[in-house]
Amino acid sequence: MQGIGAGSILRRKENGEHECVTDEVAIEEPLEIRIAGDPVATTMRTPGNDQELAAGFVLSEAIVRRRRDLTAVSAPADNRVDVELASAVKFNPGTMQRFGTISSSCGLCGKTSIEFIRQQFPPVDSANGTQFAESILLQLPERLRQAQGNFARTGGLHAAGIFDLAGNALIVREDVGRHNAVDKAIGRAFLDGLLPLSRHVLVVSGRSSLEIVQKALAAGISILAAVSAPSSLAVNFARESGQTLIGFLRPPTFNVYSHVERIAFEN
Amino acid sequence: MQGIGAGSILRRKENGEHECVTDEVAIEEPLEIRIAGDPVATTMRTPGNDQELAAGFVLSEAIVRRRRDLTAVSAPADNRVDVELASAVKFNPGTMQRFGTISSSCGLCGKTSIEFIRQQFPPVDSANGTQFAESILLQLPERLRQAQGNFARTGGLHAAGIFDLAGNALIVREDVGRHNAVDKAIGRAFLDGLLPLSRHVLVVSGRSSLEIVQKALAAGISILAAVSAPSSLAVNFARESGQTLIGFLRPPTFNVYSHVERIAFEN
Repeated sequence: MQGIGAGSILRRKENGEHECVTDEVAIEEPLEIRIAGDPVATTMRTPGNDQELAAGFVLSEAIVRRRRDLTAVSAPADNRVDVELASAVKFNPGTMQRFGTISSSCGLCGKTSIEFIRQQFPPVDSANGTQFAESILLQLPERLRQAQGNFARTGGLHAAGIFDLAGNALIVREDVGRHNAVDKAIGRAFLDGLLPLSRHVLVVSGRSSLEIVQKALAAGISILAAVSAPSSLAVNFARESGQTLIGFLRPPTFNVYSHVERIAFEN
Repeated sequence: MQGIGAGSILRRKENGEHECVTDEVAIEEPLEIRIAGDPVATTMRTPGNDQELAAGFVLSEAIVRRRRDLTAVSAPADNRVDVELASAVKFNPGTMQRFGTISSSCGLCGKTSIEFIRQQFPPVDSANGTQFAESILLQLPERLRQAQGNFARTGGLHAAGIFDLAGNALIVREDVGRHNAVDKAIGRAFLDGLLPLSRHVLVVSGRSSLEIVQKALAAGISILAAVSAPSSLAVNFARESGQTLIGFLRPPTFNVYSHVERIAFEN
Protein backbone atom coordinates (compact mmCIF):
# COMPACT_ATOMS: atom_id res chain seq x y z
CA MET A 1 0.00 0.00 0.00
CA GLN A 2 1.26 3.46 -0.90
CA GLY A 3 2.36 5.48 2.10
CA ILE A 4 3.58 2.53 4.14
CA GLY A 5 7.08 1.09 4.26
CA ALA A 6 8.37 -1.99 6.01
CA GLY A 7 11.57 -2.95 7.77
CA SER A 8 13.03 -5.22 10.42
CA ILE A 9 12.85 -4.07 14.01
CA LEU A 10 13.36 -5.50 17.45
CA ARG A 11 10.22 -5.53 19.56
CA ARG A 12 9.85 -5.98 23.29
CA LYS A 13 6.65 -7.90 23.93
CA GLU A 14 4.20 -7.63 26.80
CA ASN A 15 5.81 -10.60 28.54
CA GLY A 16 9.26 -9.00 28.40
CA GLU A 17 10.57 -11.25 25.64
CA HIS A 18 12.10 -9.81 22.51
CA GLU A 19 11.47 -10.70 18.89
CA CYS A 20 12.70 -9.55 15.51
CA VAL A 21 9.73 -8.66 13.36
CA THR A 22 8.93 -6.84 10.16
CA ASP A 23 7.21 -3.62 11.03
CA GLU A 24 5.43 -0.99 9.02
CA VAL A 25 6.13 2.72 9.24
CA ALA A 26 4.49 5.69 7.60
CA ILE A 27 6.44 7.00 4.63
CA GLU A 28 7.66 10.58 4.95
CA GLU A 29 9.09 12.19 1.82
CA PRO A 30 9.44 15.76 0.59
CA LEU A 31 6.98 17.15 -1.94
CA GLU A 32 7.95 20.30 -3.77
CA ILE A 33 5.04 22.46 -4.90
CA ARG A 34 5.72 24.71 -7.87
CA ILE A 35 3.48 27.44 -9.19
CA ALA A 36 4.04 28.43 -12.81
CA GLY A 37 7.45 26.83 -12.55
CA ASP A 38 8.54 28.56 -9.34
CA PRO A 39 9.15 26.39 -6.27
CA VAL A 40 7.02 27.92 -3.52
CA ALA A 41 7.01 25.31 -0.78
CA THR A 42 8.31 21.91 0.16
CA THR A 43 6.40 19.84 2.63
CA MET A 44 7.33 16.56 4.26
CA ARG A 45 4.36 14.41 3.42
CA THR A 46 3.20 10.85 2.99
CA PRO A 47 3.12 10.11 -0.74
CA GLY A 48 -0.32 9.78 -2.29
CA ASN A 49 -3.04 12.29 -3.16
CA ASP A 50 -0.33 14.82 -3.97
CA GLN A 51 -2.49 16.77 -6.39
CA GLU A 52 -5.09 17.20 -3.66
CA LEU A 53 -2.37 18.32 -1.27
CA ALA A 54 -1.18 20.96 -3.73
CA ALA A 55 -4.74 22.13 -4.37
CA GLY A 56 -5.44 22.36 -0.65
CA PHE A 57 -2.19 24.22 -0.14
CA VAL A 58 -2.84 26.95 -2.71
CA LEU A 59 -6.36 27.32 -1.31
CA SER A 60 -5.19 27.55 2.32
CA GLU A 61 -2.55 30.08 1.40
CA ALA A 62 -5.18 32.24 -0.33
CA ILE A 63 -3.30 31.99 -3.62
CA VAL A 64 -6.54 30.85 -5.26
CA ARG A 65 -10.13 31.28 -4.12
CA ARG A 66 -12.35 29.89 -6.82
CA ARG A 67 -12.13 26.57 -8.62
CA ARG A 68 -11.55 28.30 -11.93
CA ASP A 69 -8.46 30.04 -10.55
CA LEU A 70 -6.70 26.67 -10.58
CA THR A 71 -6.25 25.51 -14.15
CA ALA A 72 -4.04 22.46 -13.63
CA VAL A 73 -2.15 20.40 -11.09
CA SER A 74 0.31 17.98 -12.65
CA ALA A 75 0.62 14.36 -11.61
CA PRO A 76 3.51 14.06 -9.14
CA ALA A 77 6.91 13.23 -10.62
CA ASP A 78 10.16 13.08 -8.68
CA ASN A 79 8.30 14.27 -5.58
CA ARG A 80 7.21 17.45 -7.33
CA VAL A 81 3.88 18.80 -8.52
CA ASP A 82 3.35 21.76 -10.80
CA VAL A 83 0.38 24.04 -10.27
CA GLU A 84 -0.91 26.30 -13.02
CA LEU A 85 -3.09 29.29 -12.21
CA ALA A 86 -5.57 31.11 -14.40
CA SER A 87 -4.01 34.09 -16.08
CA ALA A 88 -6.20 36.48 -14.08
CA VAL A 89 -4.75 35.29 -10.76
CA LYS A 90 -2.15 37.59 -9.31
CA PHE A 91 0.64 35.66 -7.70
CA ASN A 92 4.04 36.87 -6.63
CA PRO A 93 6.35 34.10 -5.42
CA GLY A 94 8.47 36.76 -3.73
CA THR A 95 5.58 37.49 -1.37
CA MET A 96 5.32 33.82 -0.47
CA GLN A 97 8.89 33.79 0.72
CA ARG A 98 8.01 36.18 3.48
CA PHE A 99 5.88 33.51 5.09
CA GLY A 100 8.81 31.15 4.93
CA THR A 101 9.82 29.61 8.17
CA ILE A 102 11.81 26.66 9.27
CA SER A 103 11.12 25.47 12.70
CA SER A 104 7.40 25.83 13.01
CA SER A 105 5.46 22.81 14.12
CA CYS A 106 2.27 24.35 12.90
CA GLY A 107 3.57 25.63 9.61
CA LEU A 108 2.07 29.04 10.11
CA CYS A 109 4.40 31.84 10.79
CA GLY A 110 4.06 34.93 12.78
CA LYS A 111 1.92 37.92 13.22
CA THR A 112 2.16 38.96 9.62
CA SER A 113 0.58 35.72 8.56
CA ILE A 114 -2.14 35.90 11.18
CA GLU A 115 -3.11 39.37 10.05
CA PHE A 116 -2.90 38.14 6.49
CA ILE A 117 -5.31 35.30 7.20
CA ARG A 118 -7.83 37.63 8.79
CA GLN A 119 -7.69 39.82 5.71
CA GLN A 120 -7.90 36.97 3.23
CA PHE A 121 -10.65 34.84 4.71
CA PRO A 122 -13.91 36.41 5.83
CA PRO A 123 -15.58 34.90 8.90
CA VAL A 124 -18.10 32.15 8.29
CA ASP A 125 -21.71 33.24 8.46
CA SER A 126 -22.69 32.58 12.04
CA ALA A 127 -26.34 33.16 11.16
CA ASN A 128 -26.53 30.45 8.52
CA GLY A 129 -28.42 28.19 10.88
CA THR A 130 -26.31 25.09 10.30
CA GLN A 131 -26.65 22.81 13.29
CA PHE A 132 -24.93 19.57 14.03
CA ALA A 133 -26.64 16.96 16.21
CA GLU A 134 -24.66 16.06 19.30
CA SER A 135 -25.52 12.38 18.82
CA ILE A 136 -23.86 12.40 15.40
CA LEU A 137 -20.88 14.38 16.63
CA LEU A 138 -20.26 11.64 19.18
CA GLN A 139 -20.04 9.03 16.40
CA LEU A 140 -17.44 10.82 14.30
CA PRO A 141 -14.19 9.67 15.96
CA GLU A 142 -15.19 6.04 15.42
CA ARG A 143 -16.24 6.73 11.84
CA LEU A 144 -12.93 8.46 11.19
CA ARG A 145 -11.03 5.50 12.64
CA GLN A 146 -13.01 3.06 10.53
CA ALA A 147 -11.94 4.95 7.43
CA GLN A 148 -8.29 4.92 8.52
CA GLY A 149 -6.65 1.74 7.36
CA ASN A 150 -3.10 3.02 7.54
CA PHE A 151 -3.36 4.81 10.83
CA ALA A 152 -4.62 1.73 12.60
CA ARG A 153 -1.74 -0.27 11.21
CA THR A 154 1.16 2.07 11.98
CA GLY A 155 -0.06 4.59 14.51
CA GLY A 156 2.00 7.02 12.47
CA LEU A 157 -0.57 8.76 10.32
CA HIS A 158 -2.86 11.62 11.15
CA ALA A 159 -6.32 11.63 9.65
CA ALA A 160 -8.65 14.40 8.54
CA GLY A 161 -12.23 13.69 7.57
CA ILE A 162 -15.00 15.85 6.17
CA PHE A 163 -18.47 14.67 7.24
CA ASP A 164 -21.93 15.88 6.35
CA LEU A 165 -24.64 16.76 8.86
CA ALA A 166 -25.86 13.17 8.87
CA GLY A 167 -22.39 11.95 9.80
CA ASN A 168 -21.55 10.49 6.39
CA ALA A 169 -17.91 10.73 5.38
CA LEU A 170 -17.41 12.87 2.29
CA ILE A 171 -13.60 12.61 2.22
CA VAL A 172 -11.07 11.07 4.60
CA ARG A 173 -7.34 11.51 4.07
CA GLU A 174 -4.25 10.44 6.00
CA ASP A 175 -0.72 11.81 6.22
CA VAL A 176 2.29 11.78 8.48
CA GLY A 177 1.63 15.54 8.83
CA ARG A 178 -1.61 16.73 10.33
CA HIS A 179 -1.70 19.78 8.06
CA ASN A 180 -1.11 17.73 4.96
CA ALA A 181 -4.02 15.44 5.83
CA VAL A 182 -6.24 18.52 6.07
CA ASP A 183 -4.85 19.99 2.84
CA LYS A 184 -5.56 16.72 1.03
CA ALA A 185 -9.13 16.59 2.30
CA ILE A 186 -10.03 20.19 1.52
CA GLY A 187 -8.00 20.01 -1.70
CA ARG A 188 -10.14 17.12 -2.92
CA ALA A 189 -13.31 19.05 -2.10
CA PHE A 190 -11.92 22.13 -3.82
CA LEU A 191 -10.98 20.21 -6.96
CA ASP A 192 -14.49 18.74 -7.03
CA GLY A 193 -16.08 22.18 -6.82
CA LEU A 194 -17.73 21.48 -3.45
CA LEU A 195 -16.68 24.64 -1.61
CA PRO A 196 -17.76 26.32 0.60
CA LEU A 197 -18.47 23.35 2.89
CA SER A 198 -20.67 25.39 5.19
CA ARG A 199 -22.82 22.37 6.06
CA HIS A 200 -19.99 20.01 6.88
CA VAL A 201 -17.72 19.31 9.83
CA LEU A 202 -13.98 18.71 9.67
CA VAL A 203 -12.70 16.09 12.10
CA VAL A 204 -8.97 15.72 12.80
CA SER A 205 -7.30 12.92 14.72
CA GLY A 206 -4.83 15.10 16.57
CA ARG A 207 -4.79 18.58 18.00
CA SER A 208 -6.00 21.84 16.52
CA SER A 209 -3.47 24.59 16.03
CA LEU A 210 -4.17 27.91 14.39
CA GLU A 211 -3.26 26.50 11.02
CA ILE A 212 -5.86 23.74 11.15
CA VAL A 213 -8.61 26.23 12.00
CA GLN A 214 -7.42 28.50 9.21
CA LYS A 215 -7.47 25.70 6.65
CA ALA A 216 -11.01 24.84 7.68
CA LEU A 217 -11.95 28.48 7.22
CA ALA A 218 -10.38 28.55 3.77
CA ALA A 219 -12.76 25.74 2.81
CA GLY A 220 -15.72 27.55 4.39
CA ILE A 221 -16.08 24.89 7.09
CA SER A 222 -17.90 26.24 10.11
CA ILE A 223 -17.45 23.31 12.51
CA LEU A 224 -14.08 21.80 13.42
CA ALA A 225 -13.73 18.89 15.85
CA ALA A 226 -10.40 17.54 17.09
CA VAL A 227 -9.73 14.45 19.13
CA SER A 228 -7.09 16.30 21.15
CA ALA A 229 -6.46 19.77 22.55
CA PRO A 230 -6.65 23.12 20.79
CA SER A 231 -4.05 25.84 21.21
CA SER A 232 -4.89 29.29 22.49
CA LEU A 233 -4.52 30.82 19.04
CA ALA A 234 -6.81 28.19 17.56
CA VAL A 235 -9.47 29.08 20.13
CA ASN A 236 -9.11 32.82 19.65
CA PHE A 237 -9.09 32.55 15.89
CA ALA A 238 -12.18 30.31 15.82
CA ARG A 239 -14.08 32.73 18.06
CA GLU A 240 -13.28 35.64 15.76
CA SER A 241 -13.93 33.77 12.53
CA GLY A 242 -17.33 32.51 13.66
CA GLN A 243 -16.28 28.86 13.67
CA THR A 244 -17.39 26.21 16.14
CA LEU A 245 -14.30 24.61 17.65
CA ILE A 246 -14.65 21.30 19.47
CA GLY A 247 -11.74 19.67 21.29
CA PHE A 248 -11.04 16.46 23.19
CA LEU A 249 -13.79 14.76 21.21
CA ARG A 250 -13.56 11.48 23.10
CA PRO A 251 -17.07 10.14 23.47
CA PRO A 252 -18.99 10.38 25.68
CA THR A 253 -17.14 13.62 26.46
CA PHE A 254 -16.03 16.67 24.49
CA ASN A 255 -15.34 20.38 24.96
CA VAL A 256 -16.77 23.24 22.91
CA TYR A 257 -14.47 26.26 22.77
CA SER A 258 -16.42 28.59 20.50
CA HIS A 259 -19.79 29.16 18.83
CA VAL A 260 -21.67 26.48 20.67
CA GLU A 261 -24.87 27.57 18.93
CA ARG A 262 -24.16 25.22 16.02
CA ILE A 263 -24.54 22.14 18.17
CA ALA A 264 -28.03 20.71 18.61
CA PHE A 265 -28.14 19.24 22.11
CA GLU A 266 -30.53 16.43 22.67
CA ASN A 267 -30.87 16.38 26.42
CA MET B 1 1.65 29.77 34.97
CA GLN B 2 3.37 30.91 31.79
CA GLY B 3 2.32 28.99 28.71
CA ILE B 4 -1.23 28.34 29.86
CA GLY B 5 -4.31 30.43 29.17
CA ALA B 6 -7.83 30.06 30.48
CA GLY B 7 -11.30 30.61 29.09
CA SER B 8 -14.91 29.53 29.40
CA ILE B 9 -16.00 26.47 27.52
CA LEU B 10 -18.94 24.12 27.40
CA ARG B 11 -18.11 20.57 28.43
CA ARG B 12 -20.08 17.39 27.89
CA LYS B 13 -19.56 15.16 30.89
CA GLU B 14 -19.37 11.37 31.13
CA ASN B 15 -23.01 11.21 32.18
CA GLY B 16 -24.15 13.20 29.14
CA GLU B 17 -24.84 16.38 31.10
CA HIS B 18 -23.32 19.69 30.06
CA GLU B 19 -21.56 22.29 32.14
CA CYS B 20 -19.89 25.63 31.56
CA VAL B 21 -16.42 25.53 33.01
CA THR B 22 -13.19 27.48 32.88
CA ASP B 23 -10.69 25.45 30.93
CA GLU B 24 -6.99 25.82 30.32
CA VAL B 25 -5.36 25.71 26.91
CA ALA B 26 -1.75 25.80 25.84
CA ILE B 27 -0.64 29.22 24.65
CA GLU B 28 0.52 29.38 21.04
CA GLU B 29 2.22 32.60 19.92
CA PRO B 30 4.72 33.48 17.22
CA LEU B 31 8.38 33.94 18.12
CA GLU B 32 10.59 35.70 15.62
CA ILE B 33 14.24 34.72 15.73
CA ARG B 34 16.69 37.30 14.44
CA ILE B 35 20.37 36.81 13.79
CA ALA B 36 22.50 39.97 13.75
CA GLY B 37 19.30 41.90 13.20
CA ASP B 38 17.97 39.82 10.30
CA PRO B 39 14.73 37.89 10.83
CA VAL B 40 15.54 34.29 9.92
CA ALA B 41 12.58 32.33 11.22
CA THR B 42 9.28 32.62 12.97
CA THR B 43 7.94 29.70 14.92
CA MET B 44 4.60 29.22 16.61
CA ARG B 45 5.62 28.33 20.13
CA THR B 46 4.46 28.31 23.72
CA PRO B 47 6.02 31.34 25.43
CA GLY B 48 8.76 30.59 27.93
CA ASN B 49 12.38 29.47 27.57
CA ASP B 50 12.60 31.50 24.38
CA GLN B 51 16.35 31.98 24.64
CA GLU B 52 16.79 28.22 24.85
CA LEU B 53 14.52 27.82 21.85
CA ALA B 54 16.61 30.26 19.82
CA ALA B 55 19.84 28.57 20.92
CA GLY B 56 18.49 25.15 20.00
CA PHE B 57 17.31 26.49 16.68
CA VAL B 58 20.65 27.94 15.57
CA LEU B 59 22.32 24.71 16.69
CA SER B 60 19.83 22.47 14.85
CA GLU B 61 20.17 24.53 11.72
CA ALA B 62 23.96 24.19 11.84
CA ILE B 63 24.36 27.94 12.02
CA VAL B 64 26.55 27.46 15.11
CA ARG B 65 28.43 24.40 16.27
CA ARG B 66 30.40 25.38 19.34
CA ARG B 67 29.26 27.25 22.40
CA ARG B 68 31.64 30.10 21.69
CA ASP B 69 30.01 30.66 18.28
CA LEU B 70 26.96 32.00 20.09
CA THR B 71 27.84 35.24 21.84
CA ALA B 72 24.41 36.40 22.99
CA VAL B 73 20.71 35.65 22.92
CA SER B 74 18.56 38.56 24.03
CA ALA B 75 15.72 38.23 26.48
CA PRO B 76 12.46 37.98 24.52
CA ALA B 77 10.63 41.24 23.85
CA ASP B 78 7.50 41.58 21.71
CA ASN B 79 7.74 37.89 20.83
CA ARG B 80 11.21 38.39 19.34
CA VAL B 81 14.69 37.27 20.32
CA ASP B 82 17.96 38.54 18.90
CA VAL B 83 20.85 36.15 18.45
CA GLU B 84 24.40 37.41 18.09
CA LEU B 85 27.09 35.21 16.58
CA ALA B 86 30.86 35.35 17.05
CA SER B 87 32.51 37.36 14.31
CA ALA B 88 34.24 34.24 12.97
CA VAL B 89 30.91 32.54 12.20
CA LYS B 90 29.90 32.70 8.58
CA PHE B 91 26.20 33.22 8.22
CA ASN B 92 24.26 34.26 5.17
CA PRO B 93 20.58 34.89 5.83
CA GLY B 94 19.96 34.55 2.09
CA THR B 95 20.94 30.89 2.32
CA MET B 96 18.48 30.36 5.15
CA GLN B 97 15.64 31.54 3.00
CA ARG B 98 16.14 28.63 0.68
CA PHE B 99 15.08 26.29 3.44
CA GLY B 100 11.94 28.33 3.93
CA THR B 101 8.72 26.44 3.70
CA ILE B 102 5.20 26.95 4.81
CA SER B 103 3.14 23.89 5.07
CA SER B 104 5.53 21.42 6.60
CA SER B 105 4.39 19.64 9.67
CA CYS B 106 7.91 18.62 10.46
CA GLY B 107 9.52 21.95 9.68
CA LEU B 108 12.22 20.35 7.60
CA CYS B 109 12.05 20.92 3.96
CA GLY B 110 13.03 18.82 1.07
CA LYS B 111 15.91 16.96 -0.36
CA THR B 112 18.24 19.91 -0.23
CA SER B 113 17.85 20.09 3.49
CA ILE B 114 18.28 16.37 3.97
CA GLU B 115 21.53 16.41 2.02
CA PHE B 116 22.52 19.49 3.95
CA ILE B 117 21.98 17.75 7.28
CA ARG B 118 24.07 14.79 6.23
CA GLN B 119 26.87 17.14 5.30
CA GLN B 120 26.62 19.27 8.42
CA PHE B 121 26.29 16.67 11.14
CA PRO B 122 28.65 13.71 11.21
CA PRO B 123 27.20 10.40 12.40
CA VAL B 124 27.47 9.65 16.10
CA ASP B 125 30.26 7.29 17.04
CA SER B 126 28.62 3.89 17.02
CA ALA B 127 31.68 2.40 18.70
CA ASN B 128 31.56 4.66 21.73
CA GLY B 129 30.19 1.86 23.88
CA THR B 130 27.37 3.84 25.43
CA GLN B 131 24.71 1.44 26.60
CA PHE B 132 21.34 2.12 28.10
CA ALA B 133 19.73 -0.40 30.43
CA GLU B 134 16.38 -1.64 29.24
CA SER B 135 14.99 -1.43 32.78
CA ILE B 136 15.74 2.29 32.91
CA LEU B 137 14.42 2.90 29.42
CA LEU B 138 11.09 1.45 30.54
CA GLN B 139 10.87 4.03 33.33
CA LEU B 140 11.39 7.08 31.15
CA PRO B 141 7.84 7.77 29.91
CA GLU B 142 6.60 7.92 33.49
CA ARG B 143 9.52 10.13 34.53
CA LEU B 144 8.81 12.45 31.61
CA ARG B 145 5.14 12.67 32.57
CA GLN B 146 6.03 13.41 36.18
CA ALA B 147 8.09 16.38 35.02
CA GLN B 148 5.23 17.65 32.83
CA GLY B 149 2.91 19.81 34.85
CA ASN B 150 1.38 21.61 31.93
CA PHE B 151 0.88 18.66 29.68
CA ALA B 152 -1.06 16.80 32.29
CA ARG B 153 -3.31 19.79 32.79
CA THR B 154 -4.12 20.65 29.19
CA GLY B 155 -3.16 17.69 27.07
CA GLY B 156 -1.96 20.30 24.65
CA LEU B 157 1.78 20.40 25.20
CA HIS B 158 4.45 18.13 23.85
CA ALA B 159 7.39 17.29 26.08
CA ALA B 160 11.04 16.59 25.38
CA GLY B 161 13.34 15.32 28.10
CA ILE B 162 17.06 14.62 28.21
CA PHE B 163 17.95 11.83 30.65
CA ASP B 164 21.29 10.39 31.73
CA LEU B 165 22.18 6.71 31.69
CA ALA B 166 20.83 6.31 35.21
CA GLY B 167 17.48 7.71 34.13
CA ASN B 168 17.85 11.07 35.86
CA ALA B 169 16.26 14.01 34.08
CA LEU B 170 18.80 16.60 33.00
CA ILE B 171 16.33 18.90 31.24
CA VAL B 172 12.61 18.62 30.47
CA ARG B 173 10.83 21.19 28.33
CA GLU B 174 7.27 21.56 27.03
CA ASP B 175 5.79 23.33 24.05
CA VAL B 176 2.74 23.29 21.83
CA GLY B 177 5.17 22.29 19.06
CA ARG B 178 7.11 19.07 19.35
CA HIS B 179 10.14 20.57 17.60
CA ASN B 180 10.16 23.59 19.85
CA ALA B 181 10.18 21.39 22.95
CA VAL B 182 13.25 19.62 21.56
CA ASP B 183 14.92 22.90 20.60
CA LYS B 184 14.36 24.23 24.11
CA ALA B 185 15.86 21.12 25.71
CA ILE B 186 18.94 20.91 23.50
CA GLY B 187 19.25 24.69 23.53
CA ARG B 188 19.51 24.68 27.33
CA ALA B 189 22.19 21.99 27.18
CA PHE B 190 24.02 23.90 24.47
CA LEU B 191 23.94 27.16 26.44
CA ASP B 192 25.29 25.28 29.46
CA GLY B 193 28.19 23.86 27.45
CA LEU B 194 27.04 20.26 27.89
CA LEU B 195 27.29 19.12 24.26
CA PRO B 196 27.80 16.54 22.85
CA LEU B 197 25.31 14.55 24.94
CA SER B 198 26.70 11.24 23.78
CA ARG B 199 25.81 9.51 27.06
CA HIS B 200 22.23 10.73 27.25
CA VAL B 201 18.89 9.78 25.78
CA LEU B 202 16.29 12.16 24.36
CA VAL B 203 12.69 11.19 25.11
CA VAL B 204 9.80 12.84 23.27
CA SER B 205 6.12 12.54 24.09
CA GLY B 206 4.91 12.30 20.52
CA ARG B 207 6.19 10.88 17.30
CA SER B 208 9.62 11.08 15.73
CA SER B 209 9.92 12.70 12.34
CA LEU B 210 13.16 13.33 10.52
CA GLU B 211 13.51 16.69 12.16
CA ILE B 212 13.44 15.30 15.69
CA VAL B 213 16.17 12.78 14.86
CA GLN B 214 18.20 15.52 13.24
CA LYS B 215 17.92 17.80 16.26
CA ALA B 216 19.09 14.96 18.50
CA LEU B 217 22.05 14.46 16.19
CA ALA B 218 22.90 18.16 16.31
CA ALA B 219 23.23 17.76 20.09
CA GLY B 220 25.31 14.60 19.72
CA ILE B 221 22.56 12.46 21.26
CA SER B 222 22.92 8.83 20.21
CA ILE B 223 19.68 7.43 21.65
CA LEU B 224 16.21 8.80 20.86
CA ALA B 225 13.04 7.32 22.30
CA ALA B 226 9.54 8.39 21.31
CA VAL B 227 6.23 7.42 22.84
CA SER B 228 4.63 7.18 19.40
CA ALA B 229 5.56 6.13 15.88
CA PRO B 230 8.57 7.14 13.80
CA SER B 231 8.33 8.08 10.14
CA SER B 232 10.22 6.24 7.42
CA LEU B 233 12.68 9.11 7.01
CA ALA B 234 13.33 9.18 10.75
CA VAL B 235 14.18 5.47 10.68
CA ASN B 236 16.40 5.74 7.61
CA PHE B 237 18.17 8.80 8.92
CA ALA B 238 18.81 7.25 12.35
CA ARG B 239 20.25 4.11 10.73
CA GLU B 240 22.66 6.16 8.64
CA SER B 241 23.61 8.55 11.42
CA GLY B 242 24.42 5.75 13.87
CA GLN B 243 21.60 6.69 16.25
CA THR B 244 19.47 4.28 18.24
CA LEU B 245 15.81 5.02 17.48
CA ILE B 246 13.13 3.65 19.78
CA GLY B 247 9.43 4.05 19.05
CA PHE B 248 6.14 3.20 20.72
CA LEU B 249 7.87 3.33 24.09
CA ARG B 250 4.81 2.23 26.05
CA PRO B 251 6.01 0.00 28.86
CA PRO B 252 6.18 -2.92 29.01
CA THR B 253 6.55 -2.77 25.21
CA PHE B 254 8.67 -0.80 22.76
CA ASN B 255 10.18 -1.10 19.28
CA VAL B 256 13.82 -0.53 18.32
CA TYR B 257 14.23 0.65 14.74
CA SER B 258 17.99 1.13 14.54
CA HIS B 259 21.29 0.46 16.32
CA VAL B 260 19.92 -1.90 18.91
CA GLU B 261 23.47 -2.49 20.20
CA ARG B 262 23.14 0.48 22.57
CA ILE B 263 20.45 -1.18 24.62
CA ALA B 264 21.55 -3.48 27.44
CA PHE B 265 18.95 -6.22 27.65
CA GLU B 266 18.47 -7.84 30.98
CA ASN B 267 16.72 -11.02 30.06
